[in-house]
Amino acid sequence: MPRPRRRVRLDTDERRAQLLALARSAFSARSYDDVSVDDLAREAKISKGLLYHYFPTKRDLYVAGLREIAEELVQRVTSIPTNLPPVERVRQGLDAYLDHVQQHAKAFVSLMRGGIGSDPEVSQVVEGVRARFAAQFLEGLPVTSTMVNDPKVQVVIRGWIGFVESVSIDWCANPRIPRNELRELLAQILLSIMTGAAPQLLPR
Amino acid sequence: MPRPRRRVRLDTDERRAQLLALARSAFSARSYDDVSVDDLAREAKISKGLLYHYFPTKRDLYVAGLREIAEELVQRVTSIPTNLPPVERVRQGLDAYLDHVQQHAKAFVSLMRGGIGSDPEVSQVVEGVRARFAAQFLEGLPVTSTMVNDPKVQVVIRGWIGFVESVSIDWCANPRIPRNELRELLAQILLSIMTGAAPQLLPR
Repeated sequence: MPRPRRRVRLDTDERRAQLLALARSAFSARSYDDVSVDDLAREAKISKGLLYHYFPTKRDLYVAGLREIAEELVQRVTSIPTNLPPVERVRQGLDAYLDHVQQHAKAFVSLMRGGIGSDPEVSQVVEGVRARFAAQFLEGLPVTSTMVNDPKVQVVIRGWIGFVESVSIDWCANPRIPRNELRELLAQILLSIMTGAAPQLLPR
Repeated sequence: MPRPRRRVRLDTDERRAQLLALARSAFSARSYDDVSVDDLAREAKISKGLLYHYFPTKRDLYVAGLREIAEELVQRVTSIPTNLPPVERVRQGLDAYLDHVQQHAKAFVSLMRGGIGSDPEVSQVVEGVRARFAAQFLEGLPVTSTMVNDPKVQVVIRGWIGFVESVSIDWCANPRIPRNELRELLAQILLSIMTGAAPQLLPR
């Protein structure tokens, strides 16, 4: 008895993974409105009904794909050792971020420009990524909780993440400067901002 | 002959303005999905059919309202005299921007978070506003066209606008610091960024 049950569950997971992979590739290549569930079912060689069994709506498929991409992004950025010097961590974090942005350009842009509309789940994914970046940045810095909870510090870190996002969205569509220059510019801007607005966060 | 014709046109314009005002107030108070065309028609005391004569879809109504709000925002920010000292212009520009954000908080947040989804017209409105802010900022500065066309300068200005947008969205939902402090912080960050990344743009 346990064996067939397990086999069915494995198949279910595999099917889900296959559909997610197809969806991610479709949403990365095309805009949300241009992705058709019919095409995805055809590619997966299953009925539309079965696809809807796994993901009841196109939106569910999109949000699930987004969560996966967001999780990978956070994993990449947060896997950087926190014992490196802060400037080096920021540089490596930006490299990981820009790798990800380049790889998922279309999905990234539509995500950040709100590809699916005013969707609370999408906002939650995006906000979650931002919050984890901010936490990662603060981890390993010689800061006290008073500094971390300083609203000015939170405004500054959040703003810098907004800076990086805006510039990255623009850079996907229009790579005005080479990637390495972009990374250095973004790292340098963080230092300038911190020096000006929150010098207490900069290690001496 | 000319008189009745003009009267009809005036009525049309008035009706359009009335519907736009109702729509703007509705979209400012509620999310896109929660605004109902039926309710708007009822408020305007007209049939849904007549409303659709002016605005064929809810999306058209939304985009028209957005354009008007965006135009007012640009007017406010660009009406600041360019002969003031740059720091004072930035400060006044931020004041005008934050006034507008406070007044249209809901519409602003849903606009910037992509309230209507991946919509090319909405993106165009938002991008248009950003481009005009960037142009306004550069106007009156002692800069040459070589400086203005420097891709690094463009990245920096665009990024700062992203910084201001992110922080403002967050501030609408969660006003961590008083408005005056926020304005000063944003102005100071622009100066820090410019000093670090594009000192040639700062007047001596």
